[in-house]
Amino acid sequence: MSSILYSEIFEQPGAVARVLTESVSEVQALVQAAKRADVRYIALAARGTSDNAAIYAKYLLQILCGVPVLLTAPSVHTLYGATVDYRGALVIGVSQSGAGEDICEVVSAARKAGAVTAAITNTEDSLLARTAEHVLLCRAGREVAVAATKTYTTTLTIFALLAAAWSEDTAFGAALQGVPEAAQSALSVAEPVVSAVAQTLFHAEKMVTAARGANLSTAIEASLKIAETTGTTTQAFSSADLLHGPIASVEARTPCLLFAPAGKSSENIAELAGKLSGRGARVITFSPEPGADVPLVSPAHELLSPLVDILPAQLLAYYLTVARGLDPDNPRGLSKVTITR
Amino acid sequence: MSSILYSEIFEQPGAVARVLTESVSEVQALVQAAKRADVRYIALAARGTSDNAAIYAKYLLQILCGVPVLLTAPSVHTLYGATVDYRGALVIGVSQSGAGEDICEVVSAARKAGAVTAAITNTEDSLLARTAEHVLLCRAGREVAVAATKTYTTTLTIFALLAAAWSEDTAFGAALQGVPEAAQSALSVAEPVVSAVAQTLFHAEKMVTAARGANLSTAIEASLKIAETTGTTTQAFSSADLLHGPIASVEARTPCLLFAPAGKSSENIAELAGKLSGRGARVITFSPEPGADVPLVSPAHELLSPLVDILPAQLLAYYLTVARGLDPDNPRGLSKVTITR
Repeated sequence: MSSILYSEIFEQPGAVARVLTESVSEVQALVQAAKRADVRYIALAARGTSDNAAIYAKYLLQILCGVPVLLTAPSVHTLYGATVDYRGALVIGVSQSGAGEDICEVVSAARKAGAVTAAITNTEDSLLARTAEHVLLCRAGREVAVAATKTYTTTLTIFALLAAAWSEDTAFGAALQGVPEAAQSALSVAEPVVSAVAQTLFHAEKMVTAARGANLSTAIEASLKIAETTGTTTQAFSSADLLHGPIASVEARTPCLLFAPAGKSSENIAELAGKLSGRGARVITFSPEPGADVPLVSPAHELLSPLVDILPAQLLAYYLTVARGLDPDNPRGLSKVTITR
Repeated sequence: MSSILYSEIFEQPGAVARVLTESVSEVQALVQAAKRADVRYIALAARGTSDNAAIYAKYLLQILCGVPVLLTAPSVHTLYGATVDYRGALVIGVSQSGAGEDICEVVSAARKAGAVTAAITNTEDSLLARTAEHVLLCRAGREVAVAATKTYTTTLTIFALLAAAWSEDTAFGAALQGVPEAAQSALSVAEPVVSAVAQTLFHAEKMVTAARGANLSTAIEASLKIAETTGTTTQAFSSADLLHGPIASVEARTPCLLFAPAGKSSENIAELAGKLSGRGARVITFSPEPGADVPLVSPAHELLSPLVDILPAQLLAYYLTVARGLDPDNPRGLSKVTITR
């Protein structure tokens, strides 16, 4: 239990509480600037785990604020040298290290074109922080484990702060304050269950994850985390897309991790669970409902569940790694900072 | 060889030639309307194979026209009932059947909000065609095989026509006219090679596909096609993302199909090929270079290669299906039209 990854997973409730307090004025200043500029849409530039956080933002900001959200394709700039006309946009680069040159290039080009620009980063003295006009800090403390955990959840928290300030939805804002407590109890409740589930799953060579709507980020991030730490082949799907075709390739006994938080996606996930079970797949539901395979703790607003629901999946990645006899802090073939040119 | 899928694959050069001639005025009218409205960005709503075509459009329109492109998340509307402010946008729904209610809902909401709206569909008398202001027809003829082929390439062709009209890039427009011929020779050149490759691959339980930039659409569509028709577990990656972490989960002997057309992505793909080979993966390159495992035919403009490079992958899906003793026209667990609510 002396793993760095394990420690960092449990640092998250405190890190989220810190960012809720200390980053709120940075977020408010950005929202004021964006509204003054009559921004028509938000463009997010990110890779890897940060890109998964951006997927949450895509749902959250569109649903709560009604503002269209675009995920950039950084290679449009870096590989093809294109000049995209970002007038009328708020462009946010997301990178925990702040070192991703491709992300910085998108933000830099947008700033020159007159867009409102911001950085979400855990590294105050980084290229990205120097490139963007506004800096929103994750304040997660130094992240040492190669598999990112606390920079992911603090990035989600910054997006939730942004949505709260933009929408002026006071119920959402109030619910957001309860996330650290929900996160704490989610870890406590899930850990014994997840460690037992890991014992039954660690031989699996393939796994599928699925969710719908705002928790698609959870399915994709869980898939990445398990692949990174354990080397398992994982596939993440929107439950709608999975039903659309790829379900044909899910074989009998394949573990399928389905995220079914309380709320609007639960019916769709139940339909998927039925069809996967019918194909002989091994369905493992993450849900706050009684009888779930892995219990979830619901925050006070449905759209905040991705901040909490990823925690049992991170723990599962950790326990799968241990069960396989691997070092959770040194996954094979990975480095902490990947720079894409 | 009497399969419908096989016949439809070979109908594509003719279908692309038809859409180049017959749909051009529809596209020009749309571009004029979008420019009149001073559109700031384009939003695309699609699922499944149509969504893969939208990924091509995301790269092509940003690179050639400098216009930002957003892929919508239909569940934002259908599941959460959100109202997204699409003022200043051109919103295009893409659906070969035109029956996708979620896609229609996005387009309908955008049209009410005053956005310029369009449908790309193969079905003239469809809900989507009735919902959008502008209709761009694929003119692919009735597609009977469950695995979409000719509606995919004709949709790409419509996006290429759109990019040509929007950018007024005459070199690109001229190169586009040569695509049917390139497609015809791509099929002829690839078929004997692909049928032999399929014999060596058909036992594989997992496959990886990768590309970068505009051909990301090709990697994702190839992955979907092989998964749908053969039931193989497939994973599609941007080569940049694969190097970012998931490469750790690629096991020795896993077939990795790498799309390396001539142009800006080829260096990155070569780097990936080296790293995958170093891990003991079985690298299969699709490239116009001598020594490629599967030969590609290059159209006269790099950004048109996705219209041609998908053809050998479709043939591979077909020959893998046959080699496995499956019926290519009746994949297990799939229906032609999936309606997501």
